[in-house]
Amino acid sequence: VSQPTDPGTIKALTFDVFGTVVDWRNGIAEDGRAFGAGHGIEADWVAFADAWRARYQPAMAEVREGRRPWTILDVLHRENLDAVLAAMNIDGIDEAARDDLNRAWHRLPPWPDVVAGLTRMKRRFILGTLSNGNVALMVNLAKNSGLPWDVILGAEVAGHYKPDPESYRATARLLGLPPEACVLVAAHNSDLLAASREGFRTAFVKRPTEHGPAQTTDLAPNHDFDFVAEDFLDLAKQLGC
Amino acid sequence: VSQPTDPGTIKALTFDVFGTVVDWRNGIAEDGRAFGAGHGIEADWVAFADAWRARYQPAMAEVREGRRPWTILDVLHRENLDAVLAAMNIDGIDEAARDDLNRAWHRLPPWPDVVAGLTRMKRRFILGTLSNGNVALMVNLAKNSGLPWDVILGAEVAGHYKPDPESYRATARLLGLPPEACVLVAAHNSDLLAASREGFRTAFVKRPTEHGPAQTTDLAPNHDFDFVAEDFLDLAKQLGC
Repeated sequence: VSQPTDPGTIKALTFDVFGTVVDWRNGIAEDGRAFGAGHGIEADWVAFADAWRARYQPAMAEVREGRRPWTILDVLHRENLDAVLAAMNIDGIDEAARDDLNRAWHRLPPWPDVVAGLTRMKRRFILGTLSNGNVALMVNLAKNSGLPWDVILGAEVAGHYKPDPESYRATARLLGLPPEACVLVAAHNSDLLAASREGFRTAFVKRPTEHGPAQTTDLAPNHDFDFVAEDFLDLAKQLGC
Repeated sequence: VSQPTDPGTIKALTFDVFGTVVDWRNGIAEDGRAFGAGHGIEADWVAFADAWRARYQPAMAEVREGRRPWTILDVLHRENLDAVLAAMNIDGIDEAARDDLNRAWHRLPPWPDVVAGLTRMKRRFILGTLSNGNVALMVNLAKNSGLPWDVILGAEVAGHYKPDPESYRATARLLGLPPEACVLVAAHNSDLLAASREGFRTAFVKRPTEHGPAQTTDLAPNHDFDFVAEDFLDLAKQLGC
């Protein structure tokens, strides 16, 4: 059994966002329903959300693996939206309506514990995003929901998508901190494992319904992370906030 | 006479920081005095602040003009500190003490109107830094004084020091905004003029004692800027906040 991690050695908490901070599935489904109502389209909007999200990792893989130059997530999301709408046989939607629906990712709702938990943790630590979402997406999300970030970092600023090592390294470097003074907070084992390989501390936060009530993945930590928390309020408490 | 600028067309306010948001001269002099007291050194610490700041533009010029690869301001400040201490015949100061004094730039005090003005403007606009200071410096400054930025942008993220055009262009691009939806707020004519050439809106805020009571530069706007304000509270009022 490893020693517990002393919160006094931590300076910055960096956060995965989609799934960890915001509920993308219900948020996208909700905006899909409003879009459908406005265009007279009936569909399974939760399935729409899942189909859109299913194209997320493959689109980033094109960039990560060098088949495509750096491209921000808003652009990947927009291309993926066109593909999902086509696969659902939804056509006749103009560019402005597609752009607006694409911005559903800028309006995602936070999980209920998030704002209160971040507000407590902000008193003691630097709070930053370490997301694959681009800066504008992260800023708009924060303005919409009052997420009290100190700094927006992550993929666009690093020029690399997670879990590329440089996405974590650039984040610590920009903060002027050694990686061991930084924690990645995430609901995903793979992201935390990649961060820990770059020297980050790790906090697994459970989000057992990110993928809906029948979720089978990331229900529990698969590795020896520094912190394991039920939600952001529990994490704040464990960190002495 | 040009038309007044409609605040409704503005989405983001981006801020010069040294001189506009924080009082570097008194802040550095104060930390200099504490350093002197700790090391038994008597000196004119206001002159020390001016001498350190005088090396700021020449050090960035090395980078801007391509004679030196990208180097963050913390590193330039540290080199300049060594030069200033040597010029003052101060020696026997170890690396840790020099590093600590260098972080005086991370502890600079805001002008008295800043926190209240930013807090008002934050309700309506995205607030970002557009400074030559590096990200860690900006984050630490904000944590020290409660500056409520939504996002830290500027030179390090752009990879270019102001007034290079790319420093402004990258800031608007990262915000996902056209430059005309962004305002640069600054106490310096040259910075505002460079930003306006890239399509930014401009707000001149008077800081008539940035360089001390005998200041002769930047006492008034030299160009037709969109807003001219006495301080951040006046600017907030003009922007309808």
